[in-house]
This record gives sequence, C-alpha cells and structure tokens, in this order.
Amino acid sequence: MPANDQPPAYSYLGPAGTFTEAALKQVPEAVGAIWRSVNNVGEALADVVAGRSLAAMIAIENSIDGGVSATQDALANVPGLRIVGEYLVPVNFVLVARPGTRLGDVRVVNAHPVAYAQTRLWLEQALPDHGHLPATSNVAAAAALLPTGDEVGVLADAAIAPPGITEHYPLEVLANDIGDNPNAVTRFVLVGRTSAVPPATGSDKTSIIAELPDDRAGGLLDMLEQFATRGINMSLLQSRPIGDALGRYRFVIDLDGHILDERVADALLGLKRFSPHVIFLGSYPRADQQPVTVSPRYDNEAFVDARDWLRALVAGEDE
Amino acid sequence: MPANDQPPAYSYLGPAGTFTEAALKQVPEAVGAIWRSVNNVGEALADVVAGRSLAAMIAIENSIDGGVSATQDALANVPGLRIVGEYLVPVNFVLVARPGTRLGDVRVVNAHPVAYAQTRLWLEQALPDHGHLPATSNVAAAAALLPTGDEVGVLADAAIAPPGITEHYPLEVLANDIGDNPNAVTRFVLVGRTSAVPPATGSDKTSIIAELPDDRAGGLLDMLEQFATRGINMSLLQSRPIGDALGRYRFVIDLDGHILDERVADALLGLKRFSPHVIFLGSYPRADQQPVTVSPRYDNEAFVDARDWLRALVAGEDE
Amino acid sequence: MPANDQPPAYSYLGPAGTFTEAALKQVPEAVGAIWRSVNNVGEALADVVAGRSLAAMIAIENSIDGGVSATQDALANVPGLRIVGEYLVPVNFVLVARPGTRLGDVRVVNAHPVAYAQTRLWLEQALPDHGHLPATSNVAAAAALLPTGDEVGVLADAAIAPPGITEHYPLEVLANDIGDNPNAVTRFVLVGRTSAVPPATGSDKTSIIAELPDDRAGGLLDMLEQFATRGINMSLLQSRPIGDALGRYRFVIDLDGHILDERVADALLGLKRFSPHVIFLGSYPRADQQPVTVSPRYDNEAFVDARDWLRALVAGEDE
Amino acid sequence: MPANDQPPAYSYLGPAGTFTEAALKQVPEAVGAIWRSVNNVGEALADVVAGRSLAAMIAIENSIDGGVSATQDALANVPGLRIVGEYLVPVNFVLVARPGTRLGDVRVVNAHPVAYAQTRLWLEQALPDHGHLPATSNVAAAAALLPTGDEVGVLADAAIAPPGITEHYPLEVLANDIGDNPNAVTRFVLVGRTSAVPPATGSDKTSIIAELPDDRAGGLLDMLEQFATRGINMSLLQSRPIGDALGRYRFVIDLDGHILDERVADALLGLKRFSPHVIFLGSYPRADQQPVTVSPRYDNEAFVDARDWLRALVAGEDE
Repeated sequence: MPANDQPPAYSYLGPAGTFTEAALKQVPEAVGAIWRSVNNVGEALADVVAGRSLAAMIAIENSIDGGVSATQDALANVPGLRIVGEYLVPVNFVLVARPGTRLGDVRVVNAHPVAYAQTRLWLEQALPDHGHLPATSNVAAAAALLPTGDEVGVLADAAIAPPGITEHYPLEVLANDIGDNPNAVTRFVLVGRTSAVPPATGSDKTSIIAELPDDRAGGLLDMLEQFATRGINMSLLQSRPIGDALGRYRFVIDLDGHILDERVADALLGLKRFSPHVIFLGSYPRADQQPVTVSPRYDNEAFVDARDWLRALVAGEDE
Repeated sequence: MPANDQPPAYSYLGPAGTFTEAALKQVPEAVGAIWRSVNNVGEALADVVAGRSLAAMIAIENSIDGGVSATQDALANVPGLRIVGEYLVPVNFVLVARPGTRLGDVRVVNAHPVAYAQTRLWLEQALPDHGHLPATSNVAAAAALLPTGDEVGVLADAAIAPPGITEHYPLEVLANDIGDNPNAVTRFVLVGRTSAVPPATGSDKTSIIAELPDDRAGGLLDMLEQFATRGINMSLLQSRPIGDALGRYRFVIDLDGHILDERVADALLGLKRFSPHVIFLGSYPRADQQPVTVSPRYDNEAFVDARDWLRALVAGEDE
Repeated sequence: MPANDQPPAYSYLGPAGTFTEAALKQVPEAVGAIWRSVNNVGEALADVVAGRSLAAMIAIENSIDGGVSATQDALANVPGLRIVGEYLVPVNFVLVARPGTRLGDVRVVNAHPVAYAQTRLWLEQALPDHGHLPATSNVAAAAALLPTGDEVGVLADAAIAPPGITEHYPLEVLANDIGDNPNAVTRFVLVGRTSAVPPATGSDKTSIIAELPDDRAGGLLDMLEQFATRGINMSLLQSRPIGDALGRYRFVIDLDGHILDERVADALLGLKRFSPHVIFLGSYPRADQQPVTVSPRYDNEAFVDARDWLRALVAGEDE
Repeated sequence: MPANDQPPAYSYLGPAGTFTEAALKQVPEAVGAIWRSVNNVGEALADVVAGRSLAAMIAIENSIDGGVSATQDALANVPGLRIVGEYLVPVNFVLVARPGTRLGDVRVVNAHPVAYAQTRLWLEQALPDHGHLPATSNVAAAAALLPTGDEVGVLADAAIAPPGITEHYPLEVLANDIGDNPNAVTRFVLVGRTSAVPPATGSDKTSIIAELPDDRAGGLLDMLEQFATRGINMSLLQSRPIGDALGRYRFVIDLDGHILDERVADALLGLKRFSPHVIFLGSYPRADQQPVTVSPRYDNEAFVDARDWLRALVAGEDE
C-alpha cells in the first residue's frame, strides 16, 4: 500500500519498450503511478506481496507459444494474490541494428528465445546463415547492441525487438513485421493482493488452479463435469507439473463468468469438494469485453428459483 | 386433521387381510386409530387430500412385478402429498376354498391378476386345467367364494389369497406357500399431506418424480449426472408415460439420503434447474434401516467447508 | 415352420375384435395365414418357440399405461425370439350392452382393468354409481354379456369393448369414444424365431434388454453413455425387476437405428463388454416410418473412414 | 536409410555431455552408430525426415518444467514421424568454472534458461548477487567458459552444466547436486520415420495429438470420455495453442496401452470419428517397464467376445 502521498507503484517486466509495458499502458489507473521495471515474474509478484507495488503486470499466455510456465507456476506457488484485469497486446517484431548496419552485414542475431521462435521463418529466409545469441528480454536484446561496458550483445550484429524500440534506443530498423504470424497476441494479467472480489460486469473471466484427487481414474473428467454440468465454458485448460514426480499435474483453468455469478459459485463449490487443492486466482473483466451468454437454464434466476423451491419443500409449503 | 377427540384415520386397500393391511400393522402410530378400508389407491389418496385420513398406506413396488403403475401415476398427478414412511411385506399366497372342497375338485380359480401371475408356476403344475376368474383384490377373491348374494366368486371353486385369510373368512386352506418366488416382497409407502420434512435419521430415502427437458438429446444422462456428481445412489429409476404421446416419459426416482443431507439438497437444486417439472415426494426413513454411507467427499462437512471457503474468497480473506 | 402346404400361422391375443387383432390386420404377410387366438402373451410366444406359429403379435407399450410388464418379462425370459415388426393401434372404447338396455339401466360394468383405467373419467361422469367386474380381455368383457351358459358376465349390465365389437357379437353400443384420452395408442410388436437380421431400411428401431454390472455405482450412467457417445437416441428406457431381490433391475431399451448401422453395432459391442447380460430382441422397421437422422459424425462413413485410418496407422502408411 | 555399409545415424541435441546424449546412451541399437549432434529439435527431426538419420532423440517433458513446447509443436507439424521409444534421464546439475576459480569469485553465471530455473534456489542462497547469462544448451554454457575465439561465455565466471561435463571440457566443479529438486527427471523420446507399428509388449504407451471439433461446448469432456469409457488411463494431457487465435488448442495426450490393444484401437477409432484432426505419434514400450493393468471388462478377450457375439446376432444364431 503506498505510504503517505506516494502514488501507487506498478511492477512490470522492463525495461521501457517491452510488450509488458505496452500492456501496462492500457491500465487507466496506472497513469501517473510509479512504474517499477523488474527482471522477471518472480520479482514482479514479490513486489506485490511485499507491498512495494499495488499490482504487477505479467504475461500469462501467448497465442503462438502457449501458457507462460513461469507465470502459471508462480501463481500456483505464491499465496495472497488476485488477478484483477486482463489485457491483450498484439505481438510483432522488428529487426534492429546499430546505425549504419545493413541487413547483408548481419551474422549474429540477439533475441529472447520466444521472440526468436516467433520470427524463425523470416530469419531462415532473410538470414539463412545467422547465428542466435539468446537474450533475457526483448528489450535487453536490443539494448545490448549498444557499447555500454562489458555487455554481451556487442557480439551480435542485430536484435529482434518490439516495434517502438527506437523510441528508447539509438538503433535503426532493418526490417519491420518480421513475426511469422501477423495475428500473434500475448495475454497479460494485472495481479494485486487478495481483496474482496469486484462486482461482476457481465463480461468476466474466472481463473483457478486445481489439483486432482490421487485416488481415482477419470479424475480430470469428473473435474471438467463440474463446469459442463453448470453450462460453464472453459477458455483455457493447461496442465503444469506439480513437480514432485512425472505424471502429477495441476490444471490452470480459465472459466467464462464471475465468482458472483451463481453458476460459477456453484461450480467452485463443487470443485472445492472434489479437489484436494484449489486456488482461486480471481474474477475480472475480460479484455475482449465480450458479454458471457448463458442459457436460461444456468442463469442467476434459475439458481435463485431453485433455492426458493427447496426452501419451500423443506418448510412443507405446497409447491 | 381429525376433529374433536376423534382418533386419526388411516386409509388402506382393504378389506382386512390384505397385504396392505399387513403393512399398516407395522405403523406404531396407527395403533388405536381408525382404519378406513378403500378400494384403490385413488380413493386412499383422496381421503388424505380431503382430510378424511391422516395418511394412506399404498403399495408402490413389488420385487417380482415391479413398480405399481397406478400408485406412481397417482403420486405424479395428485398434489399436496408427502411420503412419510416405507414398509416391506413379504408376499406369499395360499389356495383357499369352501370347507369340504378337495384340491382335485378345483376347476376355476378366483385371483387378483398380480397374485395369479405370481403363482402361475404352482398352478400350472398342481391344477394344469384350471380356469382363471380375475378379482379386484386378493381378499375379494377369497371373500367371493362365500354365498352372500349375487356375488361372482361363487362361480369359482377356490381362490388365491394372503396367508391369514382364514382368520377373516370361514374358508379352508388347500395349499400353503404357493408363491413362485419365496423371497417376493412388496414395498409400501405411507402417504400424508405436505408438511415440514422430518429430520434426517441417517438411514433415509428420498423419492422424486421428474420430467426431462424436451429440447435435448442425452437429457436422461444429464439428469442422472446430477446424482452421480454428488455421490448419490439411486435405488429406483422407473419410467412412466406422461400420457400425452408415445415416447414421452417422466421418471420415478428413489435416492439414498434425505433432503436435509447437503448432497441431496444440492442435487435437488441441480435437478430443479434442469428439469421442467420436478415433484418432491418426500424424505423418509428406509424400511431396511440400513445406514446410508457416503464418501467424505460428499458428506455434510465437505459442503459446509466449501461454502466457508467460497465466502472467504468473495470477502477477500486469505485462503 | 408350417408343414406341407399348410399356410403359416400367427398367434395373437384373441378373440376376434381385440386391439391385438387390429394390429395383426396391419401385417400384409398375415393375410391368408392361419390366425391362432390365444389367451396371453406366454401362450403366444410359446407357439412361436414350438413352431406352431411363424410369429406372434403382442402388445408391448401403451401411451397411457406404459410398458406391458408381462410382455417385457416374457421377452427377457424366453430365448430364441426376435422382434420383426412394430405396429401402432389407436385405442378407443365403446360401452356395449345386450339389446334393449339403456344407459340409465347400467349398474355393473364388465371391463378389462386396463380398459377400465382408461375410461374411468367418462364412467365417473356418466355412471357415477356403477360397479366394476374385471374381465380377462376387452372382447371377453363384451362376450360375457351374452347368456351362453354359466358365464360370469351375465352379472354385468354393460361392457367396455373395442370399437367394432358389434361386428362379432349381437350387442348394442350405448356410448362411443369413451376413452379418456383421444390420442391413446398401443404399440404392438410382431415376434418370430431368431433368424438372420433383415437389412436396414433407414427407419429402424433396435430393442435390447440389459442388466447392469453389480459392482459399480453409476452403472446406469455408464450404460447410457454407450449410446450417447455414439449419437444414438433412446425412445424407450424401462426398468423391470430381475425378480431375485428388491432394487435389482434389468432395462428394456429401444434405440433409434439398426444393428447393421455402424454406430448401433459399435454401441452394442460396448454394451456387451459392459453388461453381464444383454439380450438383443431385434432390429426392425419403425411403425411410424420416420427416417432416423444422424449427424455426419456418427454415420456409416465416419466409421468406415476411421477403420481405414487405423489400418493405415498400424501398417505404417503415411496418414 | 543408411546407404551402402554406412552404420545408421542418430541425431541428438549435442554436443557430447548433454542430457539428450545420456538418453541416447540408453539405446542399445545406437551403439556403434553415427551420432549426429544438432542444435535443436527442428534439426533433429529434419534429419529423420530427410533420411540423414534413422532416428532422433528429443526431450519431450521435464518433471519440473513440464512439456517441452518446441518438441510438442514440432511433432504436431512435421508429418511422417513415429515415436519408437521412451527414456528417462535423472536431471541434476553441477556448477563448473575455469580451473582456479573459487565460488566466491563467481559473479556471472552462464546457464540454459531451463537449467537456471531448476537451480534458482541454490543460486539465490550460494550466490545471491550473481547475474545470469542465458545459453542455448547446458553444454554450450560450460563450453563457452573456455577462451576459444569470440565466444560469449568468457564474459561469465561459471556455468551450470550436467554432471560429467568435466569428461569433455577442462573445467572444475565448484558445486555438485545444485538442482533444487533431487527427483527431477526428463523424459525423452526416440523418433523415427513412420513404419509398421511394433508388437505390443504389455508395457506400452501411445502418444497422440488431437484437435477438438469447433462446434460444440463440452468438446474436451467428450474427447476424454473416449478413453474413460474404455478403461484407458491418460498419463499426459497437455494443451498447446494451434496458433491461429487465442483460445484454440490442440491436445498432446499419452495413453497407457498400445494401438494393437483392442481397447486402445477402439478408443482411437472413436477419437478419429470425433476429432477433426488426430495425429498418431506411435505406440512404444514404456521407459519404466511397468505393465499396464486392465480390468477384464476392457481386456482383449472382452473385445473379441463382443465381436463374436455381434456376428452371431446378425447371422441369426442363438445367443
């Protein structure tokens, strides 16, 4: 919690120019706040837990590369957190170099492994003989091209970086739009400390992590039926190793709807009874703002009506 | 409700000597009450609805013959009723005749169709050439043997009747234990007017009747999952035609457990949301007094714990 | 099998004038055959098993009264039979009496119990003080009104009978259309000895009887999933007691489709593996001649394609 | 296919000393063969497709880090491949440095990101102020410590490497067993070109990749029921983005059993009918050599019996 008159702080994977920063720019409340650039998701979440930041922006899924394991595992292991918002950032890349470099000069490319994977087709065509030097972040890949001491990147001739990188560094763009998939997008979540859930907006998502009971086959099927039987759609189901043995997984799940929606609350109750370990990560507005549509069979009124009916039955009133 | 100082009345399919009477004899509260002998289940239930009787004893299922359709249909169609108890009566039969008759003399046998069906094997062996005269009840079959006016039964030489019939009528037993299945048993229920449900005893049964939504295949499967997903065993599932068209059914269902058991209440809520028409017939102690065993995953505590957990989540308390 | 030049025989619940006879009249092959009138379904099926008849017409379900238990139990217990056809007969009733009788004179009504149940509303209004004398069949109820010896029915003043009864007996109709439900219909099946299944017509039904394995909860759910998972609709699910103990049932099931339809064959394989006892009663054309529509996901081609695919995988051919 | 008298070649993520090489050492057939060290899974599989190698050893899952996305995606996208074997390699790490370096001297650590993640706890304790330099492989991290030209690693003081690295490079071990989880293990698969499936061993695994039909909710549930309804256990279920849009996944699945096991073949047929795109990656012996146990309900005999039964039904033979 920000002391005195300090503005609140937001942590993000920096430095300036990263896709994470682009996600944080979408948060109206973050305007005028302190932006803390950190090196990884662990630091970002530690800032939140320790109260150094009000919230942290972290990447959770990429349309090409899938779930961000480090984020999913951190959310499973760090208690006291809640996702409060979701943001989408289109992912594209440019190839940048020190001024004066021509494309034909490039032999070694500095790139974060994910960025490298997403530009591989372009690189194989444009620079078939290039070597790859891995970087810790997209911006670091570019920054390292500049001779600022004992940096690694000076060994590279070019770097793969987010568009806009040249606003921050004196580099030149050798090629634009080099991402292999023009529709690539990364999903970010804003994570704060646990607090009372915000009201439902009608266009919400609920994130949970759940383990299966050990003692039964078909456990995953039974878990998924908790959602299906209440008409709840899953937009994400990702298995992550618990880590104690091969073949033991927890599941990261995104549901359409809000914990204050009756059907979601009811499914969470069912899940809690079923699973030896459920983590509620939060209910928050969807980035795409699409309303969640529900059959009347599963809307709030159906739940309220059923409860009224049950109460009357028990009281012995005529149905 | 019995007026003044009148003792309460109980209706049953009479006359004295029927299996239904044997069931009513098992009810401690009925000792000293008025016993109203009626001709069919419709009259018995009408007595209850009109307040002429406190409750009615009616047969609901036979181990050989299955569900009693008339009872099941009446319970589906007459509102304001609740099953309050369950009773089992072993079903066996004797062959009786007017004094002096010998087995070899018997050519025509008076018998209620159900009794006739359950003694067929014996009859085919002992009286291969007999004719069958249908009767409206087991006792009526025997009573009609006696020459009391213009009765039909005098046309018969013998009757199939419950053991003990000779306590009520001056007849002689020609053969004992003539039922084809020595383990045959009939299940009766005591039905009263709707009132507050009695407390759970730990050995309870819940009876319901439910229709399926029209608009989806696999509807029955979905309905049954409401029970399976809460660890609830069904001891009866019987389809009965709704009557408006071939292929349209309602389902008569007996569940292990009591409406005040959390898992049963939760399943009823799910069923109510799913089904266009659910009738709750009552929660009542099982005749066999066997305790209902439940996995800890589905016991009351699991439900209470889950609700506490959900409440804390919404309030923003740490898990 | 009919010897020499004898025409084949068909057994049915007689005598002439019954609804069963009306069903048999719908069978083109039965024209010119011998029609054997029998007293009950047991006799009818015994005729088929013994070869006295080529086939038997038996009632299996009534839209008001539900499954005919005697038929369902007989089909479960008599081996060597196959259903070869299905026929629908609208069920309506007339009140008949000896010539000269007026409606106001009627005090005792002779009626088969099922017919009595289906005309009860009319009887309560038109003859509020009548008595009921049960008969063994609808035609027998009417026939017994005539003074042909020591018959019972002469004790009755009128009888409930099928329309057309006056073609067979010198009786007069006191009232027409006295059935409580104008849409009532009875479904009959024609049952022959086991032989190779007829080809599929595209508008077929398959009837089976199956028991559940003892050793698992949710067994019925698992059984029904055998059909659901192959896109097969059930038009009938009826439980019948196995008879050895309360709570032990077998299930009589009608499926849309033919055993030679791939999806039905596959479901029967699944059912056979699952159930300790499955009886195949036959695949036969539907009475309503409505084509069975199937999603492409479950049509024959999908099954053939999948098998070709699997064969290529095993052989190591490229997919 | 190896030409002339050339021994066959095996591709693996090199250089010598990697965990992948340790996996390849477990393959008896690879003794005496040519071992082709490649830089990534894409190259390894390309060698197989082009016929330069008989097979490739690739990492597919780590007990801590989960599925190897690059491998899973490559197997989904490169046709003509089959997994032929599975191998487990315990994963542990040492910290190595140029001779003479002391632990207290280490400021920058060269490490493959996965190795870095799995030793993070140790590093934070032993070297709280270290910097991380990412490397492309575990061995490359170590090799780069040596001054062989313009290499990057010389900027680092130490490297995280597999045990045994000092057999290949003149480095000294500063610390042993620095992996955070002593039970960490990586699962490798040996991948060859598509050919006829090997016989079942009784201890087999089957790997597939499947997409869900677009047009229905509960699709995943339906897919998983294909396995559950045949008693087949899943040891892996991993979602991977198809890549065309957020929220569209394919599923990487490992099943217990072999395609020549009847229940697995039957499940694959069901899956093929259900899924718009199924890739069969192979049936192969399990690394742990544990026999797959199956309920008699799902063993081969149950399938054969059911087929015999169905054939007899269709032929009209008595059951």
